[in-house]
Amino acid sequence: MDMLWSGWGDPAKAAPLPDPVTALLRDLLGVKPRDTGTLALEEIPLPESPLDTAALRALAAAVGGEAHVRTDAESRIRHTRGKSTPDLLRIRAGDVVDAPAAVVLPATHAEVLAVLRVCGEHSLAVVPFGGGTSVVGGLAPERRVFVALDLRRMDALLDVDPISRTATLQPGLRAPDAEALLAGHGFTLGHFPQSYEWATIGGFAAARSSGQASAGYGRFDEMVLGLTVATPEGTLEVGRAPRSAAGPDLRQLILGSEGAFGVITAVTVRVRPQPQKRIYEGWRFASFEQGAAALRRLAQDGPRPTVLRLSDETETFVGLAQPDAIGSADLSANAGCTAIAGYEGTQEETERRREQAAAVLRAAGGTLLGAEPGERWAHGRYAAPYLRDSLLDAGAFAETLETAAFWSRIPELYAAVRTALTETLTAAGTPPLVMCHISHVYENGASLYFTVVGAQGEDAVAHWAPAKAAACEAVLNAGGTISHHHGVGTDHRDWYVREAGPLGVEALRAVKRRLDPDGLLNPGVLLPKD
Amino acid sequence: MDMLWSGWGDPAKAAPLPDPVTALLRDLLGVKPRDTGTLALEEIPLPESPLDTAALRALAAAVGGEAHVRTDAESRIRHTRGKSTPDLLRIRAGDVVDAPAAVVLPATHAEVLAVLRVCGEHSLAVVPFGGGTSVVGGLAPERRVFVALDLRRMDALLDVDPISRTATLQPGLRAPDAEALLAGHGFTLGHFPQSYEWATIGGFAAARSSGQASAGYGRFDEMVLGLTVATPEGTLEVGRAPRSAAGPDLRQLILGSEGAFGVITAVTVRVRPQPQKRIYEGWRFASFEQGAAALRRLAQDGPRPTVLRLSDETETFVGLAQPDAIGSADLSANAGCTAIAGYEGTQEETERRREQAAAVLRAAGGTLLGAEPGERWAHGRYAAPYLRDSLLDAGAFAETLETAAFWSRIPELYAAVRTALTETLTAAGTPPLVMCHISHVYENGASLYFTVVGAQGEDAVAHWAPAKAAACEAVLNAGGTISHHHGVGTDHRDWYVREAGPLGVEALRAVKRRLDPDGLLNPGVLLPKD
Repeated sequence: MDMLWSGWGDPAKAAPLPDPVTALLRDLLGVKPRDTGTLALEEIPLPESPLDTAALRALAAAVGGEAHVRTDAESRIRHTRGKSTPDLLRIRAGDVVDAPAAVVLPATHAEVLAVLRVCGEHSLAVVPFGGGTSVVGGLAPERRVFVALDLRRMDALLDVDPISRTATLQPGLRAPDAEALLAGHGFTLGHFPQSYEWATIGGFAAARSSGQASAGYGRFDEMVLGLTVATPEGTLEVGRAPRSAAGPDLRQLILGSEGAFGVITAVTVRVRPQPQKRIYEGWRFASFEQGAAALRRLAQDGPRPTVLRLSDETETFVGLAQPDAIGSADLSANAGCTAIAGYEGTQEETERRREQAAAVLRAAGGTLLGAEPGERWAHGRYAAPYLRDSLLDAGAFAETLETAAFWSRIPELYAAVRTALTETLTAAGTPPLVMCHISHVYENGASLYFTVVGAQGEDAVAHWAPAKAAACEAVLNAGGTISHHHGVGTDHRDWYVREAGPLGVEALRAVKRRLDPDGLLNPGVLLPKD
Repeated sequence: MDMLWSGWGDPAKAAPLPDPVTALLRDLLGVKPRDTGTLALEEIPLPESPLDTAALRALAAAVGGEAHVRTDAESRIRHTRGKSTPDLLRIRAGDVVDAPAAVVLPATHAEVLAVLRVCGEHSLAVVPFGGGTSVVGGLAPERRVFVALDLRRMDALLDVDPISRTATLQPGLRAPDAEALLAGHGFTLGHFPQSYEWATIGGFAAARSSGQASAGYGRFDEMVLGLTVATPEGTLEVGRAPRSAAGPDLRQLILGSEGAFGVITAVTVRVRPQPQKRIYEGWRFASFEQGAAALRRLAQDGPRPTVLRLSDETETFVGLAQPDAIGSADLSANAGCTAIAGYEGTQEETERRREQAAAVLRAAGGTLLGAEPGERWAHGRYAAPYLRDSLLDAGAFAETLETAAFWSRIPELYAAVRTALTETLTAAGTPPLVMCHISHVYENGASLYFTVVGAQGEDAVAHWAPAKAAACEAVLNAGGTISHHHGVGTDHRDWYVREAGPLGVEALRAVKRRLDPDGLLNPGVLLPKD
């Protein structure tokens, strides 16, 4: 099944806003209903593919036939950009200037190599395409004539090693399919980002994804033990042992390379036994500061829950993190800050960790709210992007951004980003609601995930740009990283260049030039074009 | 205090072999007493430094005066090569052909940059020098005229962040000094490799060190959160957050670069509270296979001890891992395989983990031997290099090598390396004793650490070379990495090139060329010269 071209996910799962929310948006944020509806896909004007017959023929030969090279408007529109709010606003308005010239579907590593060869010969750029869920402009290269390399045919579980607890997966596997295949062997990957239902294994690796259960299962980059990569200069295979002192860790050079160094064609990951038990519970803290200190305690001294997250006062109050609760009458229950602590594992271990963690949270000032908020969170954990679609439909603007820093920088970073967003949008006449949560904790720091809701302004994309820029400036100035798990893409590139520093960027460019001398791969994504 | 130039450590700690061991070596392995003693340092013939006055003056200007540029024979001999057995045999025989032209001691990052500039102008290679403990030829560059950049003056604790639990250390800090400084703040790094008493923070980072408590504290590369690096092309600073999705992890490109990409001038590490309690216990398993399965159980399902190691039957029998026990009459106690499980942390947590882990080890077939073997191991944990000196003095050959692989490959890897060493040395007329232990465990695999003891043969260095080569071949063919924690240096380089693959090597070379275009830094270490 294809994702909704103009929004998120499965149209059958659309979540219309309750009337009280619509009223709230209007009264509190000045949101006006949109003048125009979304165009139908058929109405979108897309010029013919610029590819000539020779190029099309060569591509078809590379991937085993014409059936796997698509130039029809629908295919190309469905591979245009990703799923950031500006991406959705632009495609809804019929702007498909970033559409690929063709969608090419290889079935094997060798076919990917062949496609890269053909693209080199025909001066075509290549954008690797997994689930298409990038929210940072990772699918919109600067060079306009490109093919989208859709990896959906590469969706096999290649190998399971139950002794080592590893599995080798193809990149086009969507996460739920990967989980289903692994479950057949009694294993789980444990990677559940908000994009879970649509995103792919290759995308997780290329973008350094981090899932909602990262406290227990780790980030995706921590799960990856081996990678096979197809580059214009040949094949790279990395990862002979879990850990090694044999030179720099080349896995960590490919993870986060966002398709700019090569196309990931196989990923060997750590797997774990399917949990026998899952418990998710809610906790209440008096303030974000108090709650953050409690999370830090668990992250540093344990025991580590599998899921650990904390909403700030605004997010707790609005309950947007739990879309099901919107419009619920019991707003008074939403004072302070809500945290979710989840535990997964064997029966005995889950209970034991829960008991020990609960003692720590209680000592840190937390009040147990019981299973209901935890179950509500678990039920709605993939729902936020649907909610965003409904907000956009209602004429509101909604977008997210995220960062991470060392614990001692978190209070300043939190304040700086909130202030930047609030002041910029208020000055532009659309005072926003800015919410935040911590959803990933480490011994030495944490992530901050911000959600902004407001009125769209005249030109919503242009209206948002200065606020996003101000937030990015605030992130860098307050010591945060420009992205904890969304990635760099084109949207964060200019700030990323500052974060990596001139010599860091040059080191990466040197790698890119060696692996992709003609600059075919995702030009302008991650690194500026030469 | 300087390390013994012709061997390991503090001469006052020398551990002469008990007579029964000498007899055993003679009777079992055919070890003959050496004909010649070690030369005295003053007797070693070293030509004058080839540096001209202009270069010496420029170097002195770079590091704040002549006092910090040394060209005397003793300084240069003390910075010749590292501490592998061939290194020791060669320097004892007066072979100092790899001596640096000068030893330069910078005090700051800016001085390191200045030295690199001067070396570029005078076409001098540069070998960063921390504790000088490399056992893989990491201090013997292919270009002969070089300066040893001794970082001992850069030995400060720059910063402690108790909230984030991080500390920033200078590279020349020896591990015990770093621990003492951190202890003043209530923290420990928890990094205790066998080289602990002499090795430095910068060396740990450059060589991807792993300590004896890696099961609990992790590898050194897992502790590193930030790095400052001086390169001929300027300064690189990496690590703004514990984890990030902003591009490839540049930290992991510097870690393991072995001084070939730049000189590490500051390291930000994760620190942990000083443990309140330490328990080390011995366990007995019927076989290496049974013991390895027990270790795997703990590594995969927990709870994780802080120290976890297992000697094979031969190592257990010989008791060489516990030098204090050599010659003890109770050899019958050494049947099967001995494991050490250590626990460090708070009182309560240590006891709890010990109890849970003991239940797992018992269920896996282990018999608790109590605290005595654990304490004996802890007491002798840094003694093996002293023992090697005594073995060399007695005319024996003793060397170690190590690898790591996924759990499912461990049995084959173990057998292949043992066979390669045994067959090669037996064919050469010196049947060896080959011992092995697992000292680092991961969810998905483990390390194997081999110790070889035998007769030296006519030319001990030449005699060992084919056995080492055969072991390296066996490692690669059986799916291991060429080094789990010793590094690549020059000794492993040819196999590392095969492990990384042509394109992996080219990617690293591209980085090297960009950061060190004139190839000043450790030429021939890690990567072949262009």
